[in-house]
Amino acid sequence: MDDSRVIAQRVKEYLSRNDRLVGLLGARVEEVSPGYAKVALTVGEGHLNAADVCHGGVLFTLADLAFALASNSHGQMALALEVSFSFLKAAVEGDEVVAQAREVHLGKRTATYLVEVIRQGDEKVALMKGTVFRFNRPFPPE
Amino acid sequence: MDDSRVIAQRVKEYLSRNDRLVGLLGARVEEVSPGYAKVALTVGEGHLNAADVCHGGVLFTLADLAFALASNSHGQMALALEVSFSFLKAAVEGDEVVAQAREVHLGKRTATYLVEVIRQGDEKVALMKGTVFRFNRPFPPE
Amino acid sequence: MDDSRVIAQRVKEYLSRNDRLVGLLGARVEEVSPGYAKVALTVGEGHLNAADVCHGGVLFTLADLAFALASNSHGQMALALEVSFSFLKAAVEGDEVVAQAREVHLGKRTATYLVEVIRQGDEKVALMKGTVFRFNRPFPPE
Amino acid sequence: MDDSRVIAQRVKEYLSRNDRLVGLLGARVEEVSPGYAKVALTVGEGHLNAADVCHGGVLFTLADLAFALASNSHGQMALALEVSFSFLKAAVEGDEVVAQAREVHLGKRTATYLVEVIRQGDEKVALMKGTVFRFNRPFPPE
Repeated sequence: MDDSRVIAQRVKEYLSRNDRLVGLLGARVEEVSPGYAKVALTVGEGHLNAADVCHGGVLFTLADLAFALASNSHGQMALALEVSFSFLKAAVEGDEVVAQAREVHLGKRTATYLVEVIRQGDEKVALMKGTVFRFNRPFPPE
Repeated sequence: MDDSRVIAQRVKEYLSRNDRLVGLLGARVEEVSPGYAKVALTVGEGHLNAADVCHGGVLFTLADLAFALASNSHGQMALALEVSFSFLKAAVEGDEVVAQAREVHLGKRTATYLVEVIRQGDEKVALMKGTVFRFNRPFPPE
Repeated sequence: MDDSRVIAQRVKEYLSRNDRLVGLLGARVEEVSPGYAKVALTVGEGHLNAADVCHGGVLFTLADLAFALASNSHGQMALALEVSFSFLKAAVEGDEVVAQAREVHLGKRTATYLVEVIRQGDEKVALMKGTVFRFNRPFPPE
Repeated sequence: MDDSRVIAQRVKEYLSRNDRLVGLLGARVEEVSPGYAKVALTVGEGHLNAADVCHGGVLFTLADLAFALASNSHGQMALALEVSFSFLKAAVEGDEVVAQAREVHLGKRTATYLVEVIRQGDEKVALMKGTVFRFNRPFPPE
């Protein structure tokens, strides 16, 4: 593994261990490489809203997690500035939901990502576009 | 109370009881009136991310909850189409965070809301703009 | 050409002829097929803002035009509900800028598109995500 | 006038004179004060789209102009990072449209604004939320 992949791996391990929402949600961090991340979740009863479909906040948090992993994957601390989220279809109990974040633009100070949320392998559930501010600080913090 | 306030009250009770994330987050639904909702949260250790500030997903879910309450407050089912979220400041453990949703536009098929998230009474933490699709169905479901 | 391509072609001709901003901007509608559109522009002096880079409004209008073409390409009238726009790089005088709109989701009442704006063939300048409301009316109007 | 108002006035004059889209659109810069701007437009035939309502790109450009004035009003160069735009109602020929930008948050590196677009004094036509990156450079450029 080259250096950038080693760093991405370290980010994956650090966030998987320290992000309390990962455990609270029951999300699984499946892959992190430079500028990319993949996170999965099986929609359970606890994720449903009052209309008995998967809560918007759950889909957002899953996408946000992939976004955080991808944007911090270069080993430099990144925090979300702006996020825009499109709800395309409702997810329901039992759905296998996957969020994949891909880097659209990596600038010196800001970077932009698209996060696609799909279920059962190919059906689009949501689409997120997000921009981070990149700080002059290493991540994980030393 | 006029009819519209009675309906808003019913929406408040129904969502407070049936939205599982309210309990999971520890959020408090404080007020719902036609086109308006206010939800509060005390940031606890379980809400922190790996950088030890309040998780973006927590702030989003809190704002999303106020958005759902306000957009369903007319007694007609509304589901989120699009949400845009600006992170202004980081919230930290112990912060008293409040999300207030206000109706900007109520159309026949769609409606738009602004949700301001503040802490300790007046400092802005986040700003959300969201649009719902309004279905020809009563809410709460009968 | 099958029916859907004939309809997309008719939408292309109608919008190219009737959209006054196309001419005002000096944009060129290059391609329209079902759920897709491509529009181009050479950045001229008249497109610059006070900082001497291409005006955000020009890039937005170009992307918005591709979005309108793609979302109306099925022959059913669509109007923008929500648009989110990320500025990635500044475009300058002489740049050959192209906006390509692709359908992400086509629902009965709403549809969602991504519009990528690039220059000189491959460098990303902006990224737009937009959602339309689909009316029960033919487009072009009969 | 205190210093901050003198600077805002200078920004108003500079942008009114140097922004070519102002003239192209026929927009009028009515007021600029620290963190605030107001721009007006009378919708003419040249602003209409193929559906004979005011072009989305025209409303966006008007709002974007108010956004640029307000975000540069402190005399420090600001460029748009992210903009989210909600179309609430269609504007038609003859409408007197006004865009007002207000500062929501002014940080060291970024700042966030809401721009309300109304017609005939009080009816909401569109709502924009935008975030800029603030450079360490004076504006207008010296």
